[in-house]
Amino acid sequence: MTRIAFLLVAVVTVAGVVASLAPASGQAVGEAAPIFVTKIPPGYRDWRLVSVAHEEGELNDIRAILGNDVAIKSYREGKLPFPEGTIIARIAWNYVPSEENNKIFGRPQSFVAGSAPAWYLQFMVKDSKKYAATGGWGFAQFDKDGKPAPEADLKKCFPCHQAIKDRDFVFTRYSP
Amino acid sequence: MTRIAFLLVAVVTVAGVVASLAPASGQAVGEAAPIFVTKIPPGYRDWRLVSVAHEEGELNDIRAILGNDVAIKSYREGKLPFPEGTIIARIAWNYVPSEENNKIFGRPQSFVAGSAPAWYLQFMVKDSKKYAATGGWGFAQFDKDGKPAPEADLKKCFPCHQAIKDRDFVFTRYSP
Repeated sequence: MTRIAFLLVAVVTVAGVVASLAPASGQAVGEAAPIFVTKIPPGYRDWRLVSVAHEEGELNDIRAILGNDVAIKSYREGKLPFPEGTIIARIAWNYVPSEENNKIFGRPQSFVAGSAPAWYLQFMVKDSKKYAATGGWGFAQFDKDGKPAPEADLKKCFPCHQAIKDRDFVFTRYSP
Repeated sequence: MTRIAFLLVAVVTVAGVVASLAPASGQAVGEAAPIFVTKIPPGYRDWRLVSVAHEEGELNDIRAILGNDVAIKSYREGKLPFPEGTIIARIAWNYVPSEENNKIFGRPQSFVAGSAPAWYLQFMVKDSKKYAATGGWGFAQFDKDGKPAPEADLKKCFPCHQAIKDRDFVFTRYSP
């Protein structure tokens, strides 16, 4: 490689690095760009249970909240803030009456997890540096095919979580 | 030992074995005595999630169904009957509205897991020989202090589970 060719490669490489560090277009200089999680954390379906919940209204789902080992340890010890590497997963299923159960029990009382709703998976990933602009948490949402939610949707996460700053921005409490 | 003394020991031993095989008092001869699980399977809170559900009415709980490794493997492979050693756990919590969540979301929509209900834990343990009289499943129920339910209550389990013999007597389906 000639000296000029080498220099050219170096300049292009540096330009690429600078470009990747630049704020997104439309972002004011000095303002932290919102960063979201775009990959589904592997193995999440094997994680241990934090708790369960039901959301009525437009969501109309029944959900399980799972945590990776770091999350579960922190929850059980009752320590806040959650340590670096904590990941909390929320899996939702459509909330459906179980005709089968109701028939056997003789009462219309049983609601179970059905098919995947529009936004099947959500995650909160703790990385205080990477996600400094949103309380140290990266937010993520995926449909049943693993497609991430548009960034505009993910920008709506933190404003609600901000209300529970004293619990390190995490809604779900551990159910023993 | 004299021959007579030896004979006496043998007879007493045989009588003991016969006594331990005899049906419980009040049980018709030839009818299998119901046997139930009286100890909480260790480590169940670390097991993986099968699914979630909500029961209305008198139960008014929200629940998680967990499975030990044998159970989860069988569920995921879609194989029936469940193998020997399968244990399925049901943890229930009182079903309570979350005032905190509702305030933040601006809508009365959120229901979460509260305190332990009267019968906090249930288990189904697969042992085809031991629990032959109840489809190969031993049933168990415990309160939050680990006290097992009276046998009269446990006798009510199998009659309902019997209705789903084609799914090896297990109500809960796996939620991916």
